[in-house]
Amino acid sequence: MNERHFASDNGAGAHPEVLAALAAANGGHHTAYGADPITDEAIDRIRDLLSPDTAVFFAFNGTGANVVAFTSALRPHQAVIAPARAHLNVDECGALERFGGMKIIGVPVTDGKLTAADVERQMRGIGDPHHVQPGAISISQSTEVGTVYTLGELRSLGSVAREHGLFFHVDGARIANAVASLGTDLKTMLLDTGVDAFTFGGTKNGMLFGEAIVFPKPHPAVELVPYVRKSGMQLASKMRFVAAQFSAMLEDDLWLRSARHANAMAARLSAALVRAGVALAHPTQANGVFAILPPAAIAPLQRERRFYVWDENASVVRLMCSFDTTEADVDSFAAAVEREVAAYR
Amino acid sequence: MNERHFASDNGAGAHPEVLAALAAANGGHHTAYGADPITDEAIDRIRDLLSPDTAVFFAFNGTGANVVAFTSALRPHQAVIAPARAHLNVDECGALERFGGMKIIGVPVTDGKLTAADVERQMRGIGDPHHVQPGAISISQSTEVGTVYTLGELRSLGSVAREHGLFFHVDGARIANAVASLGTDLKTMLLDTGVDAFTFGGTKNGMLFGEAIVFPKPHPAVELVPYVRKSGMQLASKMRFVAAQFSAMLEDDLWLRSARHANAMAARLSAALVRAGVALAHPTQANGVFAILPPAAIAPLQRERRFYVWDENASVVRLMCSFDTTEADVDSFAAAVEREVAAYR
Amino acid sequence: MNERHFASDNGAGAHPEVLAALAAANGGHHTAYGADPITDEAIDRIRDLLSPDTAVFFAFNGTGANVVAFTSALRPHQAVIAPARAHLNVDECGALERFGGMKIIGVPVTDGKLTAADVERQMRGIGDPHHVQPGAISISQSTEVGTVYTLGELRSLGSVAREHGLFFHVDGARIANAVASLGTDLKTMLLDTGVDAFTFGGTKNGMLFGEAIVFPKPHPAVELVPYVRKSGMQLASKMRFVAAQFSAMLEDDLWLRSARHANAMAARLSAALVRAGVALAHPTQANGVFAILPPAAIAPLQRERRFYVWDENASVVRLMCSFDTTEADVDSFAAAVEREVAAYR
Amino acid sequence: MNERHFASDNGAGAHPEVLAALAAANGGHHTAYGADPITDEAIDRIRDLLSPDTAVFFAFNGTGANVVAFTSALRPHQAVIAPARAHLNVDECGALERFGGMKIIGVPVTDGKLTAADVERQMRGIGDPHHVQPGAISISQSTEVGTVYTLGELRSLGSVAREHGLFFHVDGARIANAVASLGTDLKTMLLDTGVDAFTFGGTKNGMLFGEAIVFPKPHPAVELVPYVRKSGMQLASKMRFVAAQFSAMLEDDLWLRSARHANAMAARLSAALVRAGVALAHPTQANGVFAILPPAAIAPLQRERRFYVWDENASVVRLMCSFDTTEADVDSFAAAVEREVAAYR
Repeated sequence: MNERHFASDNGAGAHPEVLAALAAANGGHHTAYGADPITDEAIDRIRDLLSPDTAVFFAFNGTGANVVAFTSALRPHQAVIAPARAHLNVDECGALERFGGMKIIGVPVTDGKLTAADVERQMRGIGDPHHVQPGAISISQSTEVGTVYTLGELRSLGSVAREHGLFFHVDGARIANAVASLGTDLKTMLLDTGVDAFTFGGTKNGMLFGEAIVFPKPHPAVELVPYVRKSGMQLASKMRFVAAQFSAMLEDDLWLRSARHANAMAARLSAALVRAGVALAHPTQANGVFAILPPAAIAPLQRERRFYVWDENASVVRLMCSFDTTEADVDSFAAAVEREVAAYR
Repeated sequence: MNERHFASDNGAGAHPEVLAALAAANGGHHTAYGADPITDEAIDRIRDLLSPDTAVFFAFNGTGANVVAFTSALRPHQAVIAPARAHLNVDECGALERFGGMKIIGVPVTDGKLTAADVERQMRGIGDPHHVQPGAISISQSTEVGTVYTLGELRSLGSVAREHGLFFHVDGARIANAVASLGTDLKTMLLDTGVDAFTFGGTKNGMLFGEAIVFPKPHPAVELVPYVRKSGMQLASKMRFVAAQFSAMLEDDLWLRSARHANAMAARLSAALVRAGVALAHPTQANGVFAILPPAAIAPLQRERRFYVWDENASVVRLMCSFDTTEADVDSFAAAVEREVAAYR
Repeated sequence: MNERHFASDNGAGAHPEVLAALAAANGGHHTAYGADPITDEAIDRIRDLLSPDTAVFFAFNGTGANVVAFTSALRPHQAVIAPARAHLNVDECGALERFGGMKIIGVPVTDGKLTAADVERQMRGIGDPHHVQPGAISISQSTEVGTVYTLGELRSLGSVAREHGLFFHVDGARIANAVASLGTDLKTMLLDTGVDAFTFGGTKNGMLFGEAIVFPKPHPAVELVPYVRKSGMQLASKMRFVAAQFSAMLEDDLWLRSARHANAMAARLSAALVRAGVALAHPTQANGVFAILPPAAIAPLQRERRFYVWDENASVVRLMCSFDTTEADVDSFAAAVEREVAAYR
Repeated sequence: MNERHFASDNGAGAHPEVLAALAAANGGHHTAYGADPITDEAIDRIRDLLSPDTAVFFAFNGTGANVVAFTSALRPHQAVIAPARAHLNVDECGALERFGGMKIIGVPVTDGKLTAADVERQMRGIGDPHHVQPGAISISQSTEVGTVYTLGELRSLGSVAREHGLFFHVDGARIANAVASLGTDLKTMLLDTGVDAFTFGGTKNGMLFGEAIVFPKPHPAVELVPYVRKSGMQLASKMRFVAAQFSAMLEDDLWLRSARHANAMAARLSAALVRAGVALAHPTQANGVFAILPPAAIAPLQRERRFYVWDENASVVRLMCSFDTTEADVDSFAAAVEREVAAYR
């Protein structure tokens, strides 16, 4: 019934260390809504990874974290430039349009990555009141197709953002997988490249729920976030239970240990598929494998282990690995793929 | 540091049975976003208390639950009639105005309770396009001032709602305390009185987080809720962790055991204050005591145990009891009040 | 069929000088959307009444002018303090809540006028993310009940606004009647008292349509207005036809001539009613008379000349005079009132 | 200064018959906001062209007419499918996103025309709460690139809309040009093809301002429009002045006479350009010519007569003809083009 699968990194449960932290944070009364020492400690731990000037706000989920950031930072005539396939654009049921009243300018991109040139091409109609004015760029790191922006690519986006006065936002639902993939650290990846705000994802990496909206360096929007988070329905009353999970994630680098493991399982799966003659739709750089399977092989394989078809027309499937995916899971599924692919070749 | 206080029922942590349920729900993979057996079971348990036709949607917090319900049920020209002091109106930082684009018509009421006559008085300007059209009434049960609508009062509101085609909504952040107070059950209180939707509150009654939006009987808005919940940033990916908490709450009536205890503690505190000569601003019918203290006594007592001033002009303080408030907590604080009140008399 | 009445100053048509200006502005092509010399001239004429730094934006109607001003000036967590009975609050069908996503804090006031003390009382919950933060005050000058703020009252509001960092907005749908009533000028009334933005009303004073959003002195919101005006559906493509009307209104003080006349007719009517023993609900200071009539006299008098009941419970009627109301209109209606009132006394 | 140009059909003024109608509608008092006989008459005249069941609502401008229609018809989880280059999508500064909270799904199309197959391709993710649900299709007739949907194409879109329960909307800012181009009538073009609502454009065809939102046949959204029009800032208080213009337009088919003339001027210009060796980017079917000019020829020609570059990369310019464009205007400009094109060949 609840066999491990490759459908989503949201399909996994919580890491035992995270669950233990919830129990440890329980007991006694604390001031609600975040004015408690458990929340303070988690914020400090995130600051330690970035800068003493970093601002951290916990939220319930990734959609909420994205919407609160943009609504706090942008003005009503501004739009967000994002890859057309961004979660923000196609998987949040119009949340930003509804809550923030903002338009998203979806840009076709390659391998899930927006480039500085893509941004430049959108800098048109500036000053024309008929056109929404680009006010932000939003990228996902790692991306929705399992790729990772290099530090150089991030710096290049940071430059173009600074040049045009754009708010540079990173949807980091899988930020840990990106840090692990690049072998870098949060500060180098986000503070040093010019990012204004990012989501520090927790849920997909082994928390029960909870994300953090992080402004690595001082930004005027920070002043608005507490209010917008509340009206954005993201203010947890018993916030210690979000915070404690984050502290657990940062204890002995659990967040990176989990991400490295998930990435390694994806790499193992990817390599096995390639050996079996399967083509990849995108390079495997984080915890997701995007593979082109023979159409007739898909349904039988889904009966083996659950996964989603990503692009039906191109017969691309998405295979996500989690902190708890095992080598045996990977190997048995890879064997099944090899068998099915051979059958349909 | 984390001594039990009377500041808020959100100050308490989680009930141990709830925490245990999280651990039990962990392990293995489940389909994300609610298509899992743990979620199905929790929904069934809530349905068992109401009707097989009841629709249940889990959400992160109470503000979200309120906003999703109204945005799904009302059209853009409609407004919500609510007590002026309703949480919806003054404690959600304008969430409904921002997300739903709706006006709230705040009505001055007595003891926190809206009456059918209050509603009738707002049924004006009907058909006039200059005026928002009343489309819903929203009450809190128990109320923000610790009172509880009687079944007769609820039926009367249900009648006036039906007569004018108004959506009848109950903010049930403390619904358990109301059921416990009336010695009734959910079905009698909500389904039989004509309520269209209510929030089944979990957080203030011993969950870590999580509320449920419940439509006791079929309603056209139900069809929209899954989408509005997503755009309303209330769709938990690992929904089993909300659902498991609800199932724990409904196991052996934990929700009612906890609420009865909190109510009993409030009654004990209320009685002790009255004996000490303290006047009540509102009758104590649920888990909150609203008492009028001598202004000079407030600060010293707050140093004793934390609590909030509710109405500074009238010197009314709010004292909230939780599932884990003890008789000793109550008695020692009551003694302190008696002492301070005597000093300032 | 189209007899002159007292129902609304919107019931009148256009002043002949305004109509003539439309014809004069016709012919030839101009750049659309306001980049034309006719628009430039009208803006300059308004600036001449205020300051060379004044910013002027034409709009279609008063609701639009209000909504664009607040949406440009405020941030998403801010609210507008206004009299409960303000047009903004009760006669715009929730436009600001829907477009701007903002809450209006409606305050009960006397004679339609908000005081500095009223504003001070709302400066609570500052810094508390559960509460919308007051970001603006909005008054109507002249008010919805025919009264006029004195210069001292305006200065006092300007002070309290400055002290608390509030955007000071004046809904000037009947600004001309106020200037005429006080015998002052726009600059003294609005620039010198600290107003940040006001609506320069045209429609109710003899234009076919058209209002201006005016920022008397530099303000950061000015930069946003062109875009917000467009998304606020208030950008006229053939803007010369709004502008030409304004230029006509400012030619030989037509705006003040018309307002003085309407005010004089209201004063004449008010005096006649008082002589007939009718009590006034509010002093008559602009072009509207708010009189308390015997309930039974209302319907017969409405058959005589159309007018609206303003407050049914208090039997208050509203009698509006326009630029084209004649002394004969007033006298014949006053005679009818005298007759009916005598009959029902 | 105000020489006729080809920049926009909004650059022209008002037709003299329209101006005369304004004067004729002036005088006396009428009930404000549309309850007057002049408005009734104009509505009846539009109904005469469609059906007695047709609902007509006057509005200030085209953006407003679009936004009011969708906000009245759709629910908060629905999106509008439109050509990527639709006015609604790129020229209204995000009005629908802000006021309606809705996402627009912009689809790349050929010659400005959405096809039934384009619509079918967007019918995905149906029932998935992560995805906005397509709720409407919106096309422009004539299109933004001067083409006209055939009756067959409209019927085909009507079929696909009916099949998927989509609201079928036509932005008819230039509806007259389309009717004139097809040699059909409003009823055949819009009622018989299954359109649910359209904008009956007035401004671009010789009115000073004013559009009509028309529901050719009964639709549940009609009940909401009066309120949404008010909150959408599109309710004219002196509505007779919008209505009178429409009545003038419908008198002796002024709307069609004007559109036929503008179309004829565009055809004359288009033919001359083709003779001069200029390629067209899109066929000339209404009152706009989209021509590919040598880049170096553009600036000199703009000094001759004003016009806009439509697509800088492809060197496409847009040349709009109006009701008052003369043959001499066309011929002299065509001669200039011929001369410049020869110079740069």
